[in-house]
Amino acid sequence: MPNRRGEDERMRYKVSCDLGYEVEEGCAPFVFNIEAQRRPGQEVLEERLTLSQDLEAERFVMPESGNRYFRVLAGKGDLSVHYEAVVDLAPEVVDPAAVREMPAARLPLEVMTHLLPSRYVESDLLQTFAQKEFGHLPQGYGRVAAICNWIHDHLDYTAGSSDEHTSARDTLLQRQGVCRDFSHLAIAFCRALGIPARFVSAYAWRLSPPDFHAVVEAWLEGPEGGAWFLFDPTRKAAADGLVRMGVGRDAAEVAFCSPFGKVTCGKPEVRIEALDRDADEALTVEAVTLAAA
Amino acid sequence: MPNRRGEDERMRYKVSCDLGYEVEEGCAPFVFNIEAQRRPGQEVLEERLTLSQDLEAERFVMPESGNRYFRVLAGKGDLSVHYEAVVDLAPEVVDPAAVREMPAARLPLEVMTHLLPSRYVESDLLQTFAQKEFGHLPQGYGRVAAICNWIHDHLDYTAGSSDEHTSARDTLLQRQGVCRDFSHLAIAFCRALGIPARFVSAYAWRLSPPDFHAVVEAWLEGPEGGAWFLFDPTRKAAADGLVRMGVGRDAAEVAFCSPFGKVTCGKPEVRIEALDRDADEALTVEAVTLAAA
Amino acid sequence: MPNRRGEDERMRYKVSCDLGYEVEEGCAPFVFNIEAQRRPGQEVLEERLTLSQDLEAERFVMPESGNRYFRVLAGKGDLSVHYEAVVDLAPEVVDPAAVREMPAARLPLEVMTHLLPSRYVESDLLQTFAQKEFGHLPQGYGRVAAICNWIHDHLDYTAGSSDEHTSARDTLLQRQGVCRDFSHLAIAFCRALGIPARFVSAYAWRLSPPDFHAVVEAWLEGPEGGAWFLFDPTRKAAADGLVRMGVGRDAAEVAFCSPFGKVTCGKPEVRIEALDRDADEALTVEAVTLAAA
Amino acid sequence: MPNRRGEDERMRYKVSCDLGYEVEEGCAPFVFNIEAQRRPGQEVLEERLTLSQDLEAERFVMPESGNRYFRVLAGKGDLSVHYEAVVDLAPEVVDPAAVREMPAARLPLEVMTHLLPSRYVESDLLQTFAQKEFGHLPQGYGRVAAICNWIHDHLDYTAGSSDEHTSARDTLLQRQGVCRDFSHLAIAFCRALGIPARFVSAYAWRLSPPDFHAVVEAWLEGPEGGAWFLFDPTRKAAADGLVRMGVGRDAAEVAFCSPFGKVTCGKPEVRIEALDRDADEALTVEAVTLAAA
Repeated sequence: MPNRRGEDERMRYKVSCDLGYEVEEGCAPFVFNIEAQRRPGQEVLEERLTLSQDLEAERFVMPESGNRYFRVLAGKGDLSVHYEAVVDLAPEVVDPAAVREMPAARLPLEVMTHLLPSRYVESDLLQTFAQKEFGHLPQGYGRVAAICNWIHDHLDYTAGSSDEHTSARDTLLQRQGVCRDFSHLAIAFCRALGIPARFVSAYAWRLSPPDFHAVVEAWLEGPEGGAWFLFDPTRKAAADGLVRMGVGRDAAEVAFCSPFGKVTCGKPEVRIEALDRDADEALTVEAVTLAAA
Repeated sequence: MPNRRGEDERMRYKVSCDLGYEVEEGCAPFVFNIEAQRRPGQEVLEERLTLSQDLEAERFVMPESGNRYFRVLAGKGDLSVHYEAVVDLAPEVVDPAAVREMPAARLPLEVMTHLLPSRYVESDLLQTFAQKEFGHLPQGYGRVAAICNWIHDHLDYTAGSSDEHTSARDTLLQRQGVCRDFSHLAIAFCRALGIPARFVSAYAWRLSPPDFHAVVEAWLEGPEGGAWFLFDPTRKAAADGLVRMGVGRDAAEVAFCSPFGKVTCGKPEVRIEALDRDADEALTVEAVTLAAA
Repeated sequence: MPNRRGEDERMRYKVSCDLGYEVEEGCAPFVFNIEAQRRPGQEVLEERLTLSQDLEAERFVMPESGNRYFRVLAGKGDLSVHYEAVVDLAPEVVDPAAVREMPAARLPLEVMTHLLPSRYVESDLLQTFAQKEFGHLPQGYGRVAAICNWIHDHLDYTAGSSDEHTSARDTLLQRQGVCRDFSHLAIAFCRALGIPARFVSAYAWRLSPPDFHAVVEAWLEGPEGGAWFLFDPTRKAAADGLVRMGVGRDAAEVAFCSPFGKVTCGKPEVRIEALDRDADEALTVEAVTLAAA
Repeated sequence: MPNRRGEDERMRYKVSCDLGYEVEEGCAPFVFNIEAQRRPGQEVLEERLTLSQDLEAERFVMPESGNRYFRVLAGKGDLSVHYEAVVDLAPEVVDPAAVREMPAARLPLEVMTHLLPSRYVESDLLQTFAQKEFGHLPQGYGRVAAICNWIHDHLDYTAGSSDEHTSARDTLLQRQGVCRDFSHLAIAFCRALGIPARFVSAYAWRLSPPDFHAVVEAWLEGPEGGAWFLFDPTRKAAADGLVRMGVGRDAAEVAFCSPFGKVTCGKPEVRIEALDRDADEALTVEAVTLAAA
C-alpha cells in the first residue's frame, strides 16, 4: 500500500456558506472564522467573501493554528455574509498499522499544549475512565479509532440534546450529543491517555443535513514523522472530504462567528460539493492526515 | 504623575528555586517552566540552571506566550533541579484613572483568545453573576481592581482548601482557595465582562511563605496603548515585585513542572530577594504593566 | 402585638386547577399531589376532584409530610383533571423578634432530616458561603429573612432560565431562576447554617401570572415552641395567602404530577380567589406559621 | 427450591462498635445511628449501649425507615461510645428467577419516594445512560444484579478515592470509589430505570477490613409480594450476613454519627462475629430479602 496518493488523487471541493444577522446597534464587532485554512494538503484555489454592507474586513491568521479570522464592524440593520471557495485536498492516506503513538519524550513541545484540559474537555477528570476502557489496548492509530468506535457505539447522536455549555464530562453522563460533543469526548479520552488531540471545524462532504461539522485530530507518528491524523467519531463525514476552517483546543476556540453587541443570528446555510467525485463513493476508512509535520 | 519610572527606577531581584524528584523508571520526561521570561520590562541579566543528573535540556520558547520550557529525560533515581537568575524589572507605573477598557472593536485579534473560557475559568457560566456584581461599575482599571477587591473580601485564603481540579465555579461556591483559585475567579469575571485576562505564574517578592505565586494580567488600554496590566487578588505580593515565569489561559498552561512517568515530587523551595530595596517598603498600589504592546 | 389572630381573622380561599394530558398508551399511571393539605391552621371546608375519564383514584397521605397523593391508571386518549377546594387558613402571626433559632440540642429528631442536603439543595457544598454571608448575623427569624432578602436582591427572577435539573449550586452561579430555584437556594443556606428548612408547593394568592408556587418553611422557635415558619424569597405572594399542597426536602418530592409512560402534558391552569379579602390589601410582612408543633 | 429457610436457618451474629471523640466545648449534641434495626427478619436478642460520660440518651425511631437514633449532649473532654448486640437474621432466600420488577401502577405509594433523585444519587441525570446500558435487559432481579455486576466490573474499589461530597455522577466519571460510592451508583441506575432503591448501612460479616458497610436495597416483587431485596455491588459481604443499622435515600440520611459543635473524631472500630457459622462458608448468591412487606 502506497503511503501517498499520487497527484491525480487530489480532490476538489467547492464550499460555501451564507450567514445572516440582524444588528440592533451600529458599529457592532463580529469576528468570523469561516474561511478555509491554507495549509499543506489543503490548497485554496479561489475564494470570494461578500458582505451585504460595505465594510472593511480586518484580517488575522493565528500563527499557532493557521486559523483565518476577520473582523468587521457592522452597521445597524441586516448583515449577510457569503463565503465561497474552491479547495483542493491532497490528504495522505497511510496504512493505519504503520501509525504509532508518539511518546512524551519526543512530542514537539508546541504540540504538548494539546495534552492539557480545556473548557469543554476535562481530560484531567477522565484519567481513570480512559485507562480502564482504553489503557490496555495496543498503542497507535487503532487505539484512537477504538475510542471513536466506543463513542459511536455508546452515545446517541441527538440534535438538540446539548447546548453551548455542555462539556465532555456532561456528554459522557448524558450519553448523547451532536458532533461538537462527540469530538470533545474523543479529545478528552485521547488527552487522558497522553495523546495530543484537538478540535477541528470544517465543511464536510456528504454531511446530512448540511452544516458546519466538528471532528478530531490526534497527533500520531506515521512513517514520515509526527502529524495530525483525522478522526470523526460521528462517522458522518468522509475523512478525505473535510475542508478545515479552524483548529483549536475545543469548540470555544473555533466559533465560526463571535458577535459582540446586540445581534440576532439566523441559521447558517452551508454547502459543499465534490467537483470530481460521486456522492455515493465509499467513505475512506484508512488513516488520513493532511501532511506530516 | 509621570507615566514611566526613569531608568533609575529599575528594580533588581535575585530569584531561585530548588526542585527535587525521585524517578522510578529511567528515561522519564519532565517539562519545566521555571525560567524567568525575557520580555520588555523584564530583563534577565544572568541565570544558571543546574541538574543533579548529567542531562541535556531541550529548549523551547512558546511564541504566543514567551514561556520558556525545557525538557529533560531523567534517569532512575534522584533528580534535583536548581535555577537562579538575576532579573531587572522596569515596570511602567501608570495613573489608574488613565487606564481604560478596550472595546471589542479594537482588541488585537490575537488577544481575543483570552476572552474565551478555559478549563479552570468557566467564564461562560458566570456572565450573569459578573454583570450583576460588576456590570454597573465604570469601565476601566478600576473595574478590574473592584473585581479583585470583591474576591479579596468575599473569599478566604485557605491553604489546602482546593486541589488541581478546582475551577472558578467551584471557588465561587466554596468561597475559599489559594492564589491559583483567586486568580482563576478574577480571570473568569474579567472575561465574562469582555476584558481579556490571563494567568501568570511568578516569583513574588515578599510572598509569605515563599512559594511560586499566581496572579492575573488583564488587557487594558493605557496612555500608550493596549497592554497587560497586573493584578493580585490575594494582595500578597507587590505588583512591581513579580518576576514572570509563565503566562497562559489558566493554571493548566503554566505548570512549573509536568512529569511523565512514575515520579515522586518533593516540595519546591522558592526564593526571591530584592537587591536594591528594603523588604518593608510599601507595596505599590498603582496600575502596573511591564510594557505597552 | 398579639401572638394569634382571633377566630375572625381566618381567611377563606377558593383554589382550583385544571390539568390536561394526552396519553399515548392505556393504563398509564399518574401520581398527583394537587389537593390542599389538611393540617392545623389549614382547613379544607369542601373540595371536589373531577377526572375526564371514569377512573378510580387510589389515595395516600404521606405520614411524615401530610402530602395527599392520588394515583390513577389513565386510558389512552385525553385526560383532564379538575380540582377545586374552599380552604380556611388561620395562620398565626408572631412577632418576628420573638422567633428564635432552635439549637441542635433541642431540635425534634424527626425535624433533623431537614438539615440534610438533598438533590437540588447541596447545602454541604455551601457551608463556607453561608457562613461568610450570614454567619455573623443575629440568629432568629431575622436571619432567615436576611437570607431571603439576599436572594431577592442578588438574583433575577427570569422565566425559562432554569430547568428541572437546576440545583441551588447552579442557581447561585447563574444568579437567576424561578420560584423553585429561589426556594432551593434559600433552603440550602438555611441548612448550611443549621436551620432545618423544607420546600413547599402551594396555591398562592395574588401570584402573577397565576401558577403553582414554591416557597420555603424554616423550623424556628416561636413563643409557643418550634414550628415551621413560612418565607417567600421571590416576594411574589402573601405569606398568609398560601394554600399548601406539598412539603418535602426539595422540588423532587412535591411534583404536582408524576406521569409514567408516554404522555404529553399541557400547561396547568391554576386559580386562587380570596373570598373575604381585597386583592389590593397589603402583603403580610410579619412572621407567619400555620401552627406551632 | 423452597421460598423460605426453616427456623433452623436463622443466623446469629454478635456485632459491636467503639467510637471515640474529643469534645472541645461542653453540651455538644451528637446524633447516633449505630443500633441494629428491629424489623421482620432481624431480631435483636440482646444489646448494650455504654457511654464514657454519664449522659442521658434521647431516643427516636424514624417511622418511615425504622432507623433508631439517639442523641446525647456530651460534656467537654473525651467521649467514647460502645454498642454491642446479638442479632438473629432470618432472611428469606428466594429463587431469583421468581423475582420481578413491580410496575409503577402497583408500587406502594410510600415506596415511590425511593424513585426520586437525592443528594448523592442524581438519577435524573443518568436516564439515558441507564437506558443504554440496562434498558434492553429482561426486567427483574437479574437486571439489578446486572447493574451491580457492571459496577463491580467497571469501577475500582479504591480507599481514599472519594470524599463526603462525592455523588453517583462523580463516581461514574471517576470509575472508582468505596462501598458508599458503589451503592450510590447502583441506586442511581435502579431509580433511573423505575426501580425504587435505597441505601443501607450495616454491620457486614466477613467484610475486610472490618468497618461499617454500605449496600443497596431494591424494591422488587417476589412470590409473596413486594419487598426490599439486598444487593452488594462491591461483592465484599455476604447478603445473609448484614445487620442493618439504617436505611435511607442515600448516605446523607444514614450517617452513623452526626456531631454538632467542635469535635475531633477518632476512627470507629467495628466488629461482627457469626455465632453459628464458619468464616469460610461460601457467600450467598441467591436473592435475599428480610421479609416481604
